Amino acid sequence: MASNFNTLNLVHLGIDTQMEHVVFMRRDCHICISEGFEAHNRILVTVKGKSIIATLNTITDGILKPGKAGLSKYAWESLRAKEGDEISFSHVQPVVSMGSVRSKMYGKKLNKVDFENIINDIVKGHYSNIEIAAFITACAGDNLDIHEIIGLTEAMVNSGQKLSWDSKIVVDKHCVGGLPGNRTTPIVVAIVAEAGLIIPKTSSRAITSPAGTADTLETMTDVNLDMKQIQKVVEKENGCFVWGGSIKLSPADDILIRVERALDIDGEGQMIASVLSKKSAAGSTHVVIDIPIGKTAKVRTEEDAEKLKYYFKVVGKAIGLKVEVLFTDGSQPVGRGIGPSLEAMDVLSVLRNEKNAPQDLRDRALLIAGSIIDLAEKSKNKNGIIRAEQILSSGKAYEKFIAICKAQGGFREPKLAIHKIDIQAHKSGVVTEIDNRRLAKIAKLAGAPHDLTAGVLLLTPLKTKVNKGDALFCIYSETKGELNYAMEYLKSEPDIILIQ
Amino acid sequence: MASNFNTLNLVHLGIDTQMEHVVFMRRDCHICISEGFEAHNRILVTVKGKSIIATLNTITDGILKPGKAGLSKYAWESLRAKEGDEISFSHVQPVVSMGSVRSKMYGKKLNKVDFENIINDIVKGHYSNIEIAAFITACAGDNLDIHEIIGLTEAMVNSGQKLSWDSKIVVDKHCVGGLPGNRTTPIVVAIVAEAGLIIPKTSSRAITSPAGTADTLETMTDVNLDMKQIQKVVEKENGCFVWGGSIKLSPADDILIRVERALDIDGEGQMIASVLSKKSAAGSTHVVIDIPIGKTAKVRTEEDAEKLKYYFKVVGKAIGLKVEVLFTDGSQPVGRGIGPSLEAMDVLSVLRNEKNAPQDLRDRALLIAGSIIDLAEKSKNKNGIIRAEQILSSGKAYEKFIAICKAQGGFREPKLAIHKIDIQAHKSGVVTEIDNRRLAKIAKLAGAPHDLTAGVLLLTPLKTKVNKGDALFCIYSETKGELNYAMEYLKSEPDIILIQ
Repeated sequence: MASNFNTLNLVHLGIDTQMEHVVFMRRDCHICISEGFEAHNRILVTVKGKSIIATLNTITDGILKPGKAGLSKYAWESLRAKEGDEISFSHVQPVVSMGSVRSKMYGKKLNKVDFENIINDIVKGHYSNIEIAAFITACAGDNLDIHEIIGLTEAMVNSGQKLSWDSKIVVDKHCVGGLPGNRTTPIVVAIVAEAGLIIPKTSSRAITSPAGTADTLETMTDVNLDMKQIQKVVEKENGCFVWGGSIKLSPADDILIRVERALDIDGEGQMIASVLSKKSAAGSTHVVIDIPIGKTAKVRTEEDAEKLKYYFKVVGKAIGLKVEVLFTDGSQPVGRGIGPSLEAMDVLSVLRNEKNAPQDLRDRALLIAGSIIDLAEKSKNKNGIIRAEQILSSGKAYEKFIAICKAQGGFREPKLAIHKIDIQAHKSGVVTEIDNRRLAKIAKLAGAPHDLTAGVLLLTPLKTKVNKGDALFCIYSETKGELNYAMEYLKSEPDIILIQ
Repeated sequence: MASNFNTLNLVHLGIDTQMEHVVFMRRDCHICISEGFEAHNRILVTVKGKSIIATLNTITDGILKPGKAGLSKYAWESLRAKEGDEISFSHVQPVVSMGSVRSKMYGKKLNKVDFENIINDIVKGHYSNIEIAAFITACAGDNLDIHEIIGLTEAMVNSGQKLSWDSKIVVDKHCVGGLPGNRTTPIVVAIVAEAGLIIPKTSSRAITSPAGTADTLETMTDVNLDMKQIQKVVEKENGCFVWGGSIKLSPADDILIRVERALDIDGEGQMIASVLSKKSAAGSTHVVIDIPIGKTAKVRTEEDAEKLKYYFKVVGKAIGLKVEVLFTDGSQPVGRGIGPSLEAMDVLSVLRNEKNAPQDLRDRALLIAGSIIDLAEKSKNKNGIIRAEQILSSGKAYEKFIAICKAQGGFREPKLAIHKIDIQAHKSGVVTEIDNRRLAKIAKLAGAPHDLTAGVLLLTPLKTKVNKGDALFCIYSETKGELNYAMEYLKSEPDIILIQ
């Protein structure tokens, strides 16, 4: 075989395209010419026996010498490439499972096998970003029925690793989100683990919010643990709080979330599948879901919440999970901080039973921890919340929290960003409404979550009496550019906190 | 202002990402650090007062020196950049019109203003490929109702240039496609122009097929004419046949088509909007639409065709076009060639009244030309087809065709690819079925349309008696790689031509 005819040698270009496989070839290279490859074609590239599909960018200038090819950082890492490696190229058949995505666009229902094929192809890197965007959009909104959500969830569970535990009962929790600062997880894990239940908690980073639980925890401990480390921590302490993406539970989810973030959407069916697939792959058996309801929360009405509750329960049952769903108040942020470090500070003040700890965060964490205890122990008198309160008040939850952090690599105090601006009330009165979405947006513009220390500190919850000139909230940012940008947005949206 | 702080100098990297604006910056550059820019962020970049939104790829290696930035070829051209130009950067507000796209995913109806904002943002380059894919998917299938299709069509008409003509009546035609080899346009334009009607025909290149009309014509004459040249040709010869993309009629369409091609879809609403917006922007008043119906054509049933007919007529009326719709036989390819050059050869043999010219292509061209004449002249006795036949048989259509080619820059004979393989019948019998889609796919795998000379020549239309070993069709290709690839596909799909 004319193997040399079809190969080039790799040079390290160090171009980071984020999670997209891109191959760079000279437009005048003999392979592009003989194979008819053009910019934006999808090409099968092989290095040392490992193949991926990559998008072609052609080079018309001198950054590649004849006989050389380059890869994006993500492709380079996927192929474990080294400088000088031989790389070969071939045409790629259109991805067959995209046919199902096209059917879905036309309103057809997809079955389990369809979802399995799609998800497997996505995990293998066979879908371009454009194709992933089409899949997400076709399944967005309420385009998936209950059977499709089950099919998607199962496909996502099966696409990656699964954890297994010696215990028959393994508990977990999830909050549907959209409520800034609602960082109950570290508190709940500490209480529940102290109560003797197994809670190997994996959390995600922010999709469209200023902080995910994993971002918040990262300000206090290491969350990038591998399977073995997790197992060790949980064996020792009953619980852990790690970033789900660092192990390969439901790896499809991490790829989908990246494109969902770019589109700023988080569809119903995909959300259910994303949440429950992670729980199932983590080996959970009993899961409590918290759905905050409020005008500016992710779920706005009780009807929407009821629908989600139904989905969570039915899909959970189909994949072998006992699911309990709580509806909670979503009318304002929980705690005072919005942004990873600021939320971590709220968490610590609750765990430390500090006098001015945010009561709402405390109450919510106790409610969820209590529900988990009740669900796991099938208790009829529902006194889980009382046990949870005792564990928290006694300081044992804090001790457990620190113990878990230490088992994960050590505890550190969260820090705040260097730039800070107070936003003042322009009149006196009572705070009657708080726009969660816009507050979250300000925290994002200020740099959260990519700067862990950036965000918003809310000083005046609902019903607070304020005088003109009082600070309503502070904005923290690591860069002046981002701070200015947040301020500019604030000017265009003056009534984020309504005073009457 | 610290203008220098926020600027870098451009170097030409010559990276072709196709139609996507990409900016390349060092990850360690002070702007990325101070502004918090990360790979895949969307950033507003400005060169000499002109701004575009670009996707950031960060560079971790030596291909960019400190103080330098690069652009993809498309961004370089959009900004008319030169080596050494200053480039500045700022955060970009999320594109507001994407909110409408998200609403659409949730099944909400979009109005005219929504579509105008979306299309304007797309034309300005404010949408990433991922966002365009989401828009296309949200509007795919039959997700758009008639009012939405009208809104989208109007937005697309208004997004670009418009042609205007002295004549009150300006005619045009369009074929919905999916039928390989159905290259009636050059013949129809020649006949209709010879009949004295104004027909400034713009055509598209292939989206998912092995040849678009513009690709086919390009094998015989120049189709990349600008506005002025078109006006000159039409003034002189009544008609022209040019590529629509070389002028800026409905420029949104060209951007959308590129992503549609990557997704291999061509949704109903977008198809109507694409077709009629081009016609309207070209200044047409009377349009005949040909819808071939067949099991393996784009439109498979009479019901689907009726729905499209309704849409074409209603949307046409709303934007001021008189539309006539013809249903034609879509059970097999028209003519014998599939691929630009091969289809051009069929066209020429009909125009030259050659003895073995494909009768089906001739009949179809006459039907359409006749319908255009009848529609334009409001003739009650519908004898347009007789006049069309006279013009063709007399050789005047051929003379007009050559005259138009000459006015467009000259006529040349189409050429065939250098590699050729005959595909033989594996048994004797009668040809009872031909799979258009798979034949088209073979032509594409063989290199059409990017190699104008590649494709498939069908030798045995429906009902042909064949003996075992007879050639059913030939495959033409410029490269052995592509020829092999087509042959491999053929092995997996042996019954493309059914013999019984």
